[in-house]
Amino acid sequence: MIPAALHEAIARIPSPAPEQPFRAHLDSLTKPLGSLGRLEDLAAQLGTLGITSLRKAAWIFAADHGIVAEGVSAYPAEVTRQMVLNFLSGGAAINVLGRLHNAPIHIVNAGVQSALESHPSLRNTPVRQGSRNMLHEPAMTEAEINQALELGLNCAGEADSRGYNLIAVGEMGIGNTTAASAIAAAITGEPIAVVTGHGTGLDAAAYAHKINVLQAIFFHHAPHLTTPDEILRRIGGLEIAAMTGFMIGCASRGIALVIDGFISTSAAVIAVALAPEVRPWFFAGHQSQEPGHRVLLEHLNLTPILTLDMRLGEGTGAVLAMPMLEAALALYMQMATFTSAGVSTATT
Amino acid sequence: MIPAALHEAIARIPSPAPEQPFRAHLDSLTKPLGSLGRLEDLAAQLGTLGITSLRKAAWIFAADHGIVAEGVSAYPAEVTRQMVLNFLSGGAAINVLGRLHNAPIHIVNAGVQSALESHPSLRNTPVRQGSRNMLHEPAMTEAEINQALELGLNCAGEADSRGYNLIAVGEMGIGNTTAASAIAAAITGEPIAVVTGHGTGLDAAAYAHKINVLQAIFFHHAPHLTTPDEILRRIGGLEIAAMTGFMIGCASRGIALVIDGFISTSAAVIAVALAPEVRPWFFAGHQSQEPGHRVLLEHLNLTPILTLDMRLGEGTGAVLAMPMLEAALALYMQMATFTSAGVSTATT
Repeated sequence: MIPAALHEAIARIPSPAPEQPFRAHLDSLTKPLGSLGRLEDLAAQLGTLGITSLRKAAWIFAADHGIVAEGVSAYPAEVTRQMVLNFLSGGAAINVLGRLHNAPIHIVNAGVQSALESHPSLRNTPVRQGSRNMLHEPAMTEAEINQALELGLNCAGEADSRGYNLIAVGEMGIGNTTAASAIAAAITGEPIAVVTGHGTGLDAAAYAHKINVLQAIFFHHAPHLTTPDEILRRIGGLEIAAMTGFMIGCASRGIALVIDGFISTSAAVIAVALAPEVRPWFFAGHQSQEPGHRVLLEHLNLTPILTLDMRLGEGTGAVLAMPMLEAALALYMQMATFTSAGVSTATT
Repeated sequence: MIPAALHEAIARIPSPAPEQPFRAHLDSLTKPLGSLGRLEDLAAQLGTLGITSLRKAAWIFAADHGIVAEGVSAYPAEVTRQMVLNFLSGGAAINVLGRLHNAPIHIVNAGVQSALESHPSLRNTPVRQGSRNMLHEPAMTEAEINQALELGLNCAGEADSRGYNLIAVGEMGIGNTTAASAIAAAITGEPIAVVTGHGTGLDAAAYAHKINVLQAIFFHHAPHLTTPDEILRRIGGLEIAAMTGFMIGCASRGIALVIDGFISTSAAVIAVALAPEVRPWFFAGHQSQEPGHRVLLEHLNLTPILTLDMRLGEGTGAVLAMPMLEAALALYMQMATFTSAGVSTATT
């Protein structure tokens, strides 16, 4: 039972325009046909979405995970809160990249375990101080998942009121690769081992333990993983649910999204399962080193813009891809045509 | 017999500093170890070269090729000159990208077939109006290759006097994928068919013809392809020789280079064969669709920063990669450390 506000947002998602006129313009530009490769795909997609100049931002959703009690992460849970403070003081990777590429960073406390003081750059509205331990019970109650989805929808409203039209979606949450692996296995049907990686840096023994925990989670929840919202509620997380709501809310307002790594993409997969109309509004920023990320991108039929062997999260891979989207758009808008430049076309 | 000025430049190429201190700093930053992937490699390499802020530019070398008389290109030779005019009026892809990423574009006429009028943005010093037809004679005489190498060295002097420390190296020359394929086969020993692609867009029949022409070129020159400079002189091109001189000249002045696609990389391969000390000064901007490019990058043990299925040349793939180098450097310089941010380190 997803909230009514989400149904309403889904119903408002605009359809993209046909691609052909944008491809025809690209073919008239002074370059061999198709020679800008993936940049032509990006320019055409932006065209179909009606985007002619970029107004960029990044939205980062943070939360803790009850499953961390089972020893699935190389870092202690308090790192989530510490990294949120790092975001707020401007010292994290995403801050550096946001400043470099002119994408203001917005931080959302969707469910950090310990309390955070208020700060002008923080939406400090945790649904709960950490999700429940999904080894023993659903990660969220019905009320909690609905509140998290609505938090994401409200953030999309804020993004719209600030005038952004291209948003990188990132996250911070110790333990959240475990939730993303569970979602990936449930949605795609791939075995746990195929969609589970070493997270922030597990050794071999800790990795084997993480696989065992995930198998036990599946044993517990399998009979109930029949709808995307129930998958999200039982084996997701508060920041993942908020990102799902945010993505649907942004698409409904004509805001394109650059998804980031494994966790951000697990939210995208749930969003598309709930509302296939969201899919055209997605760009995949990069290919993460987490093995499940490739599985999810293939499931969504998304080609990552960058492949830099990163596995950091925070929206870093998404913000890094923004100059490529900017380049694609600038080439589309500014290049001379064969006719205007007096350049001969191919003879064969 | 390469010119004395080139020998002197090679002798002046500085050695990079050891990498370890730069890796140690990267490991102290608030991110899981190694999680910035390739960006950490780029930051460490910039560190070893002593580069702490980027002053960017692009240098584009243009020339025509006598071999075009044999029908190896989808475009007529006059397109080289037309595209140079397009560069000078700001309408080509490289102009758009240079403006977007703050890399001023410098154009060099190394040997365009028909005369070009003078222009403030053009170094208009053709060695010869097009190289000789390598099917019948060496592409350049001894005097011509030396003049082309010295032209490149002089451009490096100009780049240095303008204060640049990171330069994208690109080219324009109808027919130059044929020269690059010939160089790739001669240097790496790979079969012609493995290092030959469809250039700017040959159909199957024209591609088969290009392969036949390349086989005939090899039959003619094979006994003499014993040194890198003789390979360059016999089966290279004027812009390729100028790029080779430019790369060596830049490295000798402590200027790092972002090489672009197949043709730019063929010049890099010759430069490294003449002077292995050049190699640490290279970044590979992207992986082109031309099959020989992958062979040359592997030969140089260079990992491309981007893979966008491009095959345009002009330095476009190199300039597109510059934001990634900028990001790598900014992350290195600006991120907080675990200690400064009070973030806990890994427990496993």
